[in-house]
Amino acid sequence: MPDQPRESRGSHAGNRFDRRRARTRSALISAARALLAEGAAAEASIQEIADRADVGFGSFYNHFESKSALFDTAVMDALDEYGQLIDAVAGGVEDPAEVFSASVRMTIRMMETHPELAQVLRRRGIEQLHADAGLAPRALRDIEKGVATGRFSVEDPRIALSAVGGSILGLLQLESVRPDISGPDAAEQLAALILRMLGLPPGEAREVARRPLPLEPRG
Amino acid sequence: MPDQPRESRGSHAGNRFDRRRARTRSALISAARALLAEGAAAEASIQEIADRADVGFGSFYNHFESKSALFDTAVMDALDEYGQLIDAVAGGVEDPAEVFSASVRMTIRMMETHPELAQVLRRRGIEQLHADAGLAPRALRDIEKGVATGRFSVEDPRIALSAVGGSILGLLQLESVRPDISGPDAAEQLAALILRMLGLPPGEAREVARRPLPLEPRG
Repeated sequence: MPDQPRESRGSHAGNRFDRRRARTRSALISAARALLAEGAAAEASIQEIADRADVGFGSFYNHFESKSALFDTAVMDALDEYGQLIDAVAGGVEDPAEVFSASVRMTIRMMETHPELAQVLRRRGIEQLHADAGLAPRALRDIEKGVATGRFSVEDPRIALSAVGGSILGLLQLESVRPDISGPDAAEQLAALILRMLGLPPGEAREVARRPLPLEPRG
Repeated sequence: MPDQPRESRGSHAGNRFDRRRARTRSALISAARALLAEGAAAEASIQEIADRADVGFGSFYNHFESKSALFDTAVMDALDEYGQLIDAVAGGVEDPAEVFSASVRMTIRMMETHPELAQVLRRRGIEQLHADAGLAPRALRDIEKGVATGRFSVEDPRIALSAVGGSILGLLQLESVRPDISGPDAAEQLAALILRMLGLPPGEAREVARRPLPLEPRG
């Protein structure tokens, strides 16, 4: 087996064990994410999750102490991935205000593209507003970047993050009780409100919030 | 009994029954609110709540189908009363921006004056953002008043309400995980951010947000 690194047999076995352990954990998270996406998370039993992940029932408890601990991890994992997608889309844009607006609009759009995740975010996002993973740290980074370049003007960026994050959750809630108020227009209105809050004059906030999203063909 | 209105005996008995029924319901809600205020709502049993309300255990289910139904009502009742307090304090103020700022600051202050209620609001407020009672309808009314007088400028007041309400919940969350970021200064910063969002220029938003609250001595 020429491709394998030279190691003692013990550490080699250890690595194999670690890899298998990581695969099991990752299979459980994938199964939980699939159940979330299907809206079937609430009813799924641990046995069903283990079957779906193709791991033994007993393995479950080597990785997670409860079903809700697994789903917490799965949600953070999904939000983190969504944050990477937003970064990939908005990363090429120069103007911090346009980056922020695009991020807000894409987060609201999750209601259509990832409805179950959006529902979890709506119900439980308040508690994750200052978590170390998911969307919040990215938003804080982008607020701080906007302040550093003079595009935004806020006193305490953490207070601004609370307000921005809460606003987004508020619109997710409104859209879920009033489906007639949804879609791109509502997201653009919210992005404009948020840009004003971060210090842009109303007219400019409105203009930036209505620019085509980075991946879409530009006028 | 000369003070009693003239009625048939049947309807009189009916009224007495209705009054007793209303008293029982109100006693249960008061007991629930006291438990909320003491932070003891989660552990209280229905028997304990009934004892505290001085009503029979069996009466409970004539009024509420579960403990959580009672607490939902108690929270709405408490928020409604808090809204009346805010209205009483801010009602004499002319400027809709100052009214709004005072309301935001008083809502944040609930963390100190009504900590348990503030915690319920923080955890569950998102779902009540478009309820017919509590703080949300008052905020919507005040946004619409500000728009009507030209002090605020927003497209859809319901979207603005989502953003404003969510922002407040976001700061309640921040204060509960980071108690160092709390108190009047944080509330004033949030009020200024919200006034900007509603269309005030940054300098004016800041000035209005830092005005003494209506009940406090001015200048």
